[in-house]
Amino acid sequence: MSVIGIDIGGTKIASAIMDNDGNFTKRLITQLEGRGGEAVGTLINELVVSLMTLAKEQNELIDGIGVSVPGIYFAERGSVWAPNIKDWRDYPLYQRLIAIPDIKDIRVKIDSDRACYILGETWRGVARGCRNAIFIAIGTGIGAGILIDGRILRGTGDIAGAIGWMGLDRPYRDVYKSCGCFEYHTSGEGIARVARDYIGADKTYRGELRRDDLNSYHVFQAYEHGDQLAVKVFDHCIEFWGMAAANLVSTFNPEKIIFGGGVFGPAAQFLERIREEVLRWAQPISAGQVSIEVSSLGDDAGLIGAGRLVRMIG
Amino acid sequence: MSVIGIDIGGTKIASAIMDNDGNFTKRLITQLEGRGGEAVGTLINELVVSLMTLAKEQNELIDGIGVSVPGIYFAERGSVWAPNIKDWRDYPLYQRLIAIPDIKDIRVKIDSDRACYILGETWRGVARGCRNAIFIAIGTGIGAGILIDGRILRGTGDIAGAIGWMGLDRPYRDVYKSCGCFEYHTSGEGIARVARDYIGADKTYRGELRRDDLNSYHVFQAYEHGDQLAVKVFDHCIEFWGMAAANLVSTFNPEKIIFGGGVFGPAAQFLERIREEVLRWAQPISAGQVSIEVSSLGDDAGLIGAGRLVRMIG
Repeated sequence: MSVIGIDIGGTKIASAIMDNDGNFTKRLITQLEGRGGEAVGTLINELVVSLMTLAKEQNELIDGIGVSVPGIYFAERGSVWAPNIKDWRDYPLYQRLIAIPDIKDIRVKIDSDRACYILGETWRGVARGCRNAIFIAIGTGIGAGILIDGRILRGTGDIAGAIGWMGLDRPYRDVYKSCGCFEYHTSGEGIARVARDYIGADKTYRGELRRDDLNSYHVFQAYEHGDQLAVKVFDHCIEFWGMAAANLVSTFNPEKIIFGGGVFGPAAQFLERIREEVLRWAQPISAGQVSIEVSSLGDDAGLIGAGRLVRMIG
Repeated sequence: MSVIGIDIGGTKIASAIMDNDGNFTKRLITQLEGRGGEAVGTLINELVVSLMTLAKEQNELIDGIGVSVPGIYFAERGSVWAPNIKDWRDYPLYQRLIAIPDIKDIRVKIDSDRACYILGETWRGVARGCRNAIFIAIGTGIGAGILIDGRILRGTGDIAGAIGWMGLDRPYRDVYKSCGCFEYHTSGEGIARVARDYIGADKTYRGELRRDDLNSYHVFQAYEHGDQLAVKVFDHCIEFWGMAAANLVSTFNPEKIIFGGGVFGPAAQFLERIREEVLRWAQPISAGQVSIEVSSLGDDAGLIGAGRLVRMIG
């Protein structure tokens, strides 16, 4: 049996038909083109109908549809909160999907992108076979997909894994209010923010990072060029990334911690130094039992995980 | 049906017969008197035999024995690592217990003290009915009992919940090496340590805490007397306790966080200020959903939880 996976992002939707081993037999990218609210729901429905038709043409039987959403999935209500999609504050995605006439008797599963990332890694990535593993997604924001005994940690209100809010640096600063301490310092946005803070504090700095449109890409580039301020920014990030991973290691005693998201990516080069930080901070026996890795699926982790959702019990 | 609960500590063993609602119908305290290794196992066996006899006299049917151990329980091997009991590095407690002739056909369950604390609270304490709750035990050391969907979080090597190792303050210091950052600053030992650090840094201090045998009890006492250095120590602790609880709130999205252990106790007076710290640091929706409390069971949490173990599935 095959499944359909759909990975909804803030600007586009990736979708695929996947065989029993998670290999793509068909794959599509659909731009949102500024759509919001019901228009996105309609687009997804059309996509499902197209993929069902394609599957039929490929002689593939589909027994489920899995959907990754860029925000929170409220399982009891079947609704989605997605900050980057207009009017998706409590959007009834599950109801919209099961109303599609063509997919009667087909299993529909939805979960947050971070839940899908870790499921993707356990299916086809570096966490294959793991039952206790954590995906730390460092992109525009920060979140974690946490697998315990083979099940996703959801929490009492479906918002477990909000580790961007981890407090790692005293004292509290008001700038943490909208995004949390860990995210403030080391998300994609955070890398640029910390660089700007350092530049503001160093009047003598005349390097390439002194620009108005500074973003994390520029900081990575400057690092490649040996810019000392960029080196300082990543020293700072590596310490935070290592502390956060260490805190999850001490708390969960997992088999694997996987770094992914847009920043890992280029930050994969710092993996060895992050491992050293984990060894410093974490409970030493747990630190010895965990393996710290970078996602091997890149942008596909969410899409593959969406497909994997269909095979999850419960 | 009734159960036997046994709570092994570093210096004594508390044990009880409990009815179906977790009420004690008999209760004993047995001093270890320096025993270690097999001698402790023998003592526990004798205790079980006595309690079985007592139960018979009270016309109570016992269908299980639950044991709380002061360290780590390795479920696969049935063995215990307990740093405060001599020669209990990998002690085969499960095998010793099931070998007692009188308890054939009786369920035997063992788990770490921190696991038992949270189970005790869900049975007879402030977490009654909760399926997602965390007990933060602040005593000589620090650890957490974590309940997810009604099950104890164990981790891949049975050492989940080692939150004494949580990193909350940069940069790393070598003094964290043996106990972890959070525990260094705010365990019972930590309170005295931080007080000594402050005294060392303040040559003008002439208050009651300038003594060679300083321990956390003295710091609490000095706080009652309005000693400003003690006030500073607890300001420091409250920030750490709040950050650690906040990090668990953001990560787990639990219904309740319960502070307990010897320090809570006297630190219960700071609960409102700890709540304020949690609201500052934690993911705001999760912070709104969680209730932060102090254990209502005090020293009995582990004993009651040991009894509750018998009723846990798996």
